[in-house]
Amino acid sequence: MEPVLIDGAWRPATSVGSFRAADPASGAPLPCEFPVSAWDDVDAALAAASTAARALGKLPGSARAAFLARFADRIEARAGELADTAHRETGLPRAPRLADVELPRTTGQLRQAAAAAAEGSWSAPTIDTKANIRSILAPCGPVAVFGPNNFPFAFNSAAGGDLAAAVAAGCPVIAKANTSHPRTTQLLAEEACAAVRETGLPAATVQLVYRTGHEDGARLVADRRLGASAYTGSRTAGLALKAAADAAGIPIYLELSSVNPVLMLPGALAERLQACIDEFVDSSLLGAGQFCTNPGLVLLVGSAAAEEFIAGVKTKFEARPPAPLLSANVCASLDASVRTLRKAGARLLAGGEPGSPGVRYAHTLLRVEGDAFLADAEAFQTEAFGNAAVMVVCRDTAQLAACIGLLDGNLTGSVYSDTAGADDALYDRLVPLLRPKVGRLLDDKMPTGVAVSPAMNHGGPYPATGHPGFTAVGIPASLRRFGRLECFDNVRPARLPPLLRDANPGAGDTRAWRSIDGVWTRENVGAPLPRL
Amino acid sequence: MEPVLIDGAWRPATSVGSFRAADPASGAPLPCEFPVSAWDDVDAALAAASTAARALGKLPGSARAAFLARFADRIEARAGELADTAHRETGLPRAPRLADVELPRTTGQLRQAAAAAAEGSWSAPTIDTKANIRSILAPCGPVAVFGPNNFPFAFNSAAGGDLAAAVAAGCPVIAKANTSHPRTTQLLAEEACAAVRETGLPAATVQLVYRTGHEDGARLVADRRLGASAYTGSRTAGLALKAAADAAGIPIYLELSSVNPVLMLPGALAERLQACIDEFVDSSLLGAGQFCTNPGLVLLVGSAAAEEFIAGVKTKFEARPPAPLLSANVCASLDASVRTLRKAGARLLAGGEPGSPGVRYAHTLLRVEGDAFLADAEAFQTEAFGNAAVMVVCRDTAQLAACIGLLDGNLTGSVYSDTAGADDALYDRLVPLLRPKVGRLLDDKMPTGVAVSPAMNHGGPYPATGHPGFTAVGIPASLRRFGRLECFDNVRPARLPPLLRDANPGAGDTRAWRSIDGVWTRENVGAPLPRL
Repeated sequence: MEPVLIDGAWRPATSVGSFRAADPASGAPLPCEFPVSAWDDVDAALAAASTAARALGKLPGSARAAFLARFADRIEARAGELADTAHRETGLPRAPRLADVELPRTTGQLRQAAAAAAEGSWSAPTIDTKANIRSILAPCGPVAVFGPNNFPFAFNSAAGGDLAAAVAAGCPVIAKANTSHPRTTQLLAEEACAAVRETGLPAATVQLVYRTGHEDGARLVADRRLGASAYTGSRTAGLALKAAADAAGIPIYLELSSVNPVLMLPGALAERLQACIDEFVDSSLLGAGQFCTNPGLVLLVGSAAAEEFIAGVKTKFEARPPAPLLSANVCASLDASVRTLRKAGARLLAGGEPGSPGVRYAHTLLRVEGDAFLADAEAFQTEAFGNAAVMVVCRDTAQLAACIGLLDGNLTGSVYSDTAGADDALYDRLVPLLRPKVGRLLDDKMPTGVAVSPAMNHGGPYPATGHPGFTAVGIPASLRRFGRLECFDNVRPARLPPLLRDANPGAGDTRAWRSIDGVWTRENVGAPLPRL
Repeated sequence: MEPVLIDGAWRPATSVGSFRAADPASGAPLPCEFPVSAWDDVDAALAAASTAARALGKLPGSARAAFLARFADRIEARAGELADTAHRETGLPRAPRLADVELPRTTGQLRQAAAAAAEGSWSAPTIDTKANIRSILAPCGPVAVFGPNNFPFAFNSAAGGDLAAAVAAGCPVIAKANTSHPRTTQLLAEEACAAVRETGLPAATVQLVYRTGHEDGARLVADRRLGASAYTGSRTAGLALKAAADAAGIPIYLELSSVNPVLMLPGALAERLQACIDEFVDSSLLGAGQFCTNPGLVLLVGSAAAEEFIAGVKTKFEARPPAPLLSANVCASLDASVRTLRKAGARLLAGGEPGSPGVRYAHTLLRVEGDAFLADAEAFQTEAFGNAAVMVVCRDTAQLAACIGLLDGNLTGSVYSDTAGADDALYDRLVPLLRPKVGRLLDDKMPTGVAVSPAMNHGGPYPATGHPGFTAVGIPASLRRFGRLECFDNVRPARLPPLLRDANPGAGDTRAWRSIDGVWTRENVGAPLPRL
């Protein structure tokens, strides 16, 4: 049985069971056996993380930066083994996806987080010189990270965006592996552990358990030693954790399901039908549709062009061979969602059944008319995680507006409109309805690319996430989730955190931006203001 | 029966009962009869607020600023009647407290909020020019505000800090009056309503109901038409609302009870005993102790000086006549808390019983030894809202550290230390334990003043509030609670919100600060960077 990582040591788990991952390409179980941890492991991790949080708090941001950068280097040095392992556990293509796209994204995130930790602007140091009151976002304490199944590197609980943001903010991480790729997570945690040791951070800065009982998961997110949790995954499990964390008053950041509506306005179809088809199909089937931002719901106004669009998508769906899904669970859940949609009245245009070899599902296209959608909007927004999409064909633009009015909270919403202005009036009418329902609004672009940009919002209104004010992707914004606002009132200068002292502790472009008496500056308190 | 304010009209409530406030100076009921609203009133307010939110969203920040400034002017024009009414309903002194301190604070907040609304920096516009991704905090939708009993103006649901922040952020407010000062709230809402009309904002920008059943309150905070709630008051009622809001995934910001620990270190007592006594007593008894930030728990190391400190406080507590409390409820609750503390083993040094005339309570001082505190720390942290304080006398500094380790989340924590350095080592040992438990740390200063500073944190860890990352006081920071992160990815320039377009829409010092490619600036996109 594989060991867990507690307080810097790989040690046997206190286990209440075990599990193995499976190779989705063949369905065969993989050799390593992983423990289901009892509460004792979680309790030990929490105790060690509490101690580590205090020690981390005394170190400068540059120490966290050194770890994050070293961790990125170590991941790159083991890239081949990581890509092989992740490929075996997830069925995702070794190249380009894993080795050439996701792994560089992961190390890029770690390096961006390193820069943010060293520089410190994320913490929004705010100084009121007149009242001598100063405030800053301080690390909130240990963070539990629950990673999803669909990004074995970039959202991995032991190496992905949440870990990078939490550690950069000064918070030790207790990683809960996704049970479909435990070995990948173990390898990443090995590198994290080695990098922690090499850079002298507290031993419990990164810890790992693979799986716990549901009750122990709920107990973890509600434990008073924890500062916050970050969860990416299914709505059911996420909302159960949210209920436990909320009752204890401990922040939990969720990234749950989303159908990511796409409005294909008439002018766009008239202007560039084939491009609309191609862009939609490529985005919809990318990674077998297994993205949080997969476009799962297309809204159209009925017309000959709309029929051509749907027919074009159907043709491409039928022509492309399905890729392996991440796991048998994903396949079963996708099939169940397709059944739910059909039961509600959606018409099957393509796919709708499992494929082969291994764990696959035929690319699936469903269709529903606007009247039916309006009558049971909740059912038709059932997320079919994977390679399936629903087309909603509305009678007219008024019905389209009504459908948008019944949309639930989503991560993204995309609007395709013509470039000559024919759709402008309709855009102006529809987007005010769509905008409050989505975290990210896209023009003429599919939502599957989630750039690691300071302006990104990978978040959105409930139930896409648990709080509409935070993003899980984008640096430094994603660090703010793990900040606790600390105010210093009349505190003597030498006792202030370095970033709140009169002299900005950094140098040159690595000095933090601070708001001093309402002016954002990298200068010291008292320095002349830059000319505007 | 007094009317409610729904969608710009004062109209008869759909009521399920009625209530009157009482004059705490005499205990006599006041003449006006106010309705307990049925759900119909709340439902109508929510419907009107939804429409108003969309209309407000189309207006520039300067329109909200004009309203907030006009509202402040109107409050000043009616200052005499407001102070008389609030005095009658709360027993707080007409002057200086109500007329000369709280009313100017309230209009000052409204004017600061006006400036923040006009300028826009609160929304943290963030532009990534390379990826053409831009994000901003947008108004979250209608906000329900539940005001407390202890600030009839400055935290009033129809005129206080939460209303100012919500409207400045672009959110209509549904005010739920505190039932101990409904007439004051009504007068303020009259001025708000007139200012809304004069400045052309949507009629439902400010609405008012006085009271609802508990179930309807829970239904309100969980209604999907609502963007967020802000509640200041008792822990029991606040947590009931939080449970309802959390289950619906709608943010609720709470400002609950707090005992605001004060550490009196030995050197401070040795250096300036009388000043320590005077500052503590003045802060403790200010406003009959009815402040969220009232210092209710003093932690000391046993010594002759500590005994002198306690004796000095006791003498002053006994010498000063008690002031009227806000209501008979406050008095009953204070008495119950004192009983709880005594039952747990606290020794009564002064007070401990109701006084007269009207609603008063004798200034109450309790004492508990460190051993006893450690054995039942939760009981000894029972908030006694009003003019009561608990002294915790520890055996030694190790026991003091242990006591701090068992403190709950608080709004503030104060540390008095000597100025020559004798306490420095102890400060360095204790403050790392105290810091994560409090929102605002003070050196040599009592916590009762809560400056409206951009660096203020009137917030803190649970259960002082519901989320440690936000503040209820301080502009522009308090506006962030009411923001929803909106990202624009590849959106065409003319379709962007003005603050995200290349050209900064403001002029001079009223231009918003924006983060453009990681640089905070008031310039347009593409302008040369200021020299650092």
